[in-house]
Amino acid sequence: MTLQTVPVPLGEKSYHIEIGSDNLEHIGEVLETFAPVSSAVILTDRNVQQLGYAQRVAENVSLRGIDTNILSIEAGEQSKTVETANALWNALLEDGTDRRSVLLAVGGGVVGDIGGFVAATFARGIRFFQVPTTLLAQVDSSVGGKVGLDLPNAKNMVGAFHQPLGVLVDTQTLATLPDEQFLSGLGEVAKYAVSLDADLFQFLEQNTESVNKREPETLQKIVVACCKLKAGIVAEDEFDTKGHRVLLNYGHTFGHVFEIMSKFTLLHGLAVAAGSIHAAKLALKLGLIDETLLNRHLALFKALRLPTVLDTEIDWEQAAEIMQYDKKTEFGKLCLVLPTGPGQCQLIDDIGTKLVAES
Amino acid sequence: MTLQTVPVPLGEKSYHIEIGSDNLEHIGEVLETFAPVSSAVILTDRNVQQLGYAQRVAENVSLRGIDTNILSIEAGEQSKTVETANALWNALLEDGTDRRSVLLAVGGGVVGDIGGFVAATFARGIRFFQVPTTLLAQVDSSVGGKVGLDLPNAKNMVGAFHQPLGVLVDTQTLATLPDEQFLSGLGEVAKYAVSLDADLFQFLEQNTESVNKREPETLQKIVVACCKLKAGIVAEDEFDTKGHRVLLNYGHTFGHVFEIMSKFTLLHGLAVAAGSIHAAKLALKLGLIDETLLNRHLALFKALRLPTVLDTEIDWEQAAEIMQYDKKTEFGKLCLVLPTGPGQCQLIDDIGTKLVAES
Repeated sequence: MTLQTVPVPLGEKSYHIEIGSDNLEHIGEVLETFAPVSSAVILTDRNVQQLGYAQRVAENVSLRGIDTNILSIEAGEQSKTVETANALWNALLEDGTDRRSVLLAVGGGVVGDIGGFVAATFARGIRFFQVPTTLLAQVDSSVGGKVGLDLPNAKNMVGAFHQPLGVLVDTQTLATLPDEQFLSGLGEVAKYAVSLDADLFQFLEQNTESVNKREPETLQKIVVACCKLKAGIVAEDEFDTKGHRVLLNYGHTFGHVFEIMSKFTLLHGLAVAAGSIHAAKLALKLGLIDETLLNRHLALFKALRLPTVLDTEIDWEQAAEIMQYDKKTEFGKLCLVLPTGPGQCQLIDDIGTKLVAES
Repeated sequence: MTLQTVPVPLGEKSYHIEIGSDNLEHIGEVLETFAPVSSAVILTDRNVQQLGYAQRVAENVSLRGIDTNILSIEAGEQSKTVETANALWNALLEDGTDRRSVLLAVGGGVVGDIGGFVAATFARGIRFFQVPTTLLAQVDSSVGGKVGLDLPNAKNMVGAFHQPLGVLVDTQTLATLPDEQFLSGLGEVAKYAVSLDADLFQFLEQNTESVNKREPETLQKIVVACCKLKAGIVAEDEFDTKGHRVLLNYGHTFGHVFEIMSKFTLLHGLAVAAGSIHAAKLALKLGLIDETLLNRHLALFKALRLPTVLDTEIDWEQAAEIMQYDKKTEFGKLCLVLPTGPGQCQLIDDIGTKLVAES
């Protein structure tokens, strides 16, 4: 399979996403183009470290004469805390990390988000490179420069915009991904398709089997399509102030509520999947889409084994309260991204919380 | 006395520093130009709060129909920690702070630095306004967008660049400043003069008496001169990457060491003052300046009652080790800003630590 490159055009901060299969050992070569690099700090989590990816990255970077050091955090959302950031800041200081160093995040979204935030803030910003090893991180969180951590009641409430030097995606790393994690990534993929890309929507409908079998060519196609979508939107709205980027948030307002209410035991992409279906039902109620489209959503999500409802009972009063903290809330008014057609969506503002509960 | 305005030209991020006397009640008017503002969070410290400045700001902002809330931290450098930032992030979340809110820092450098960092990182960045009430903050820390906090062994090691919407300086607030705090600010003023501005150097030499008496006209002249110097350098080197901004750091490498070794009981500007004299002595040793200029430095600092030596014995081995963590250290090599003439300085690289100890 050929290597593909998706550009993220951001002026001086432009970078490339390299997407391939078995291309993890390109990392040293890529990093060398950003010389001088005094040292490379490789951040990973314990699960990913056991699979050897961080070690492979470190060895390859070392071949280029760059000092490397692997830092490892506990896997999972519960690591995306102020405490972890504090431990990492102090670890970087002890390692003698300076402004010529690069922090490489080798892992999923948690590693990328906290690694990016630590890189954004250590010494007021050191360089950062993403090597996402989960489907979720490859199609979403590694692209666009949003980095951060969670507060106890609010996901990603502390953070920064810190664009990486580049992103390297090796879809081979998806072969070792636990099924639940793979599904979580598919949740975001399905979100892109139903809210932003009618072609990808159709491609997924026609290829559910090869997606579920994780066939490399299908996966690469999906990752490239999603990265192109995200790169296009990020390029137009780097700092999420122009209303374009908010469209990436389809399914996320409900999704975040579900994550918080599950105390982060529910994986992000699964929460987004269920959130997408809730948003689609609300869109039907508001007359934005018809029943045929809702049924296409439901059929695709079921074929991909994605959740369309949650197992647990939702306390909608509590949910409405959590939604008030959503970053899209302005002057106390709830705004939601809702579907308006196949592969189309819009930001709808000032939605009554009563209607939300009813959907 | 007339109001003076110093522009900080930074493209889209340009702002103004308003410098006056008894102009604290302009704040609501100024803030209104940045509408829409959903709420104003006023961060202060307990000492400044007792003097009523935060309350005056809050009342004035309230008159414009903007919700206000005062958050107060313990006074002093020991508040510039991850723990304080964490408490503030959670407080902002509880207050319902959103992207249309503005955080106003009413206080000295600690309030401005930690407030700015919290504003830079809450919800990936909310707007920020500086109302510095100490001489140190008025002439230095409130201008330029450097915000952050300390790690146990490294001052300002975690931070961001987050330009304020604007800065409002009321020199009347200096009337209540404890003598030690006033001297700390004078330390930075003297630094500007001897390293960057031969005219200010001479002005200070000729006006030590009225400076020491805190005469309002003299103070306003000094604050305007320092803000102009800083604004000029910041405009050319916003992110401290081009070598201009490093010139603001004269006296700071030694100064930071002195602060750390005193466990932050030594005030910043006093550490910088002593650091400046150490740097001048080193410059003499390196043949960069002559004895006449060193003596002018010493005479001015003495006339302003600034420290030229430290009371305590310095462990130079430990000092050299701390300097290795300095942000100006690259590839392990120590770089220092040293004077090269009256009101002139340069970054001198690769200085032996032995020579440093000898000075």
